[in-house]
Amino acid sequence: MHQYTLTVQGMTCGHCEKAVTEAVHSVDPEAQVLIDRAHDKVTVDTHHTRDALATAIVEAGYDVLL
Amino acid sequence: MHQYTLTVQGMTCGHCEKAVTEAVHSVDPEAQVLIDRAHDKVTVDTHHTRDALATAIVEAGYDVLL
Repeated sequence: MHQYTLTVQGMTCGHCEKAVTEAVHSVDPEAQVLIDRAHDKVTVDTHHTRDALATAIVEAGYDVLL
Repeated sequence: MHQYTLTVQGMTCGHCEKAVTEAVHSVDPEAQVLIDRAHDKVTVDTHHTRDALATAIVEAGYDVLL
């Protein structure tokens, strides 16, 4: 299990948090997701790669910083 | 048929536009809805009352100005 904290820009409301959570779960349905929207942080516990998570979040319409 | 333009605060993203549109359609499924998010404006063509629309939008979590 890995824990990644990604910086995700563009989450403006609770709907966005849900969309990002769903994007993560499209990669790993069992991932634990914690979102700190005030600080643009998304923390994920998963067996998958950071790249896979980031790709799904970008496809959902948000920017992921390197 | 009436046309109302409501000032709705709190729409921060496309998900919010969809949520407001769905709130209007919960009152009147046939209503025409046009949203100008940059200016907080929601224009609705409907046979229903302004109050009914405003109540549904407030229940969806947004502020409607008088």
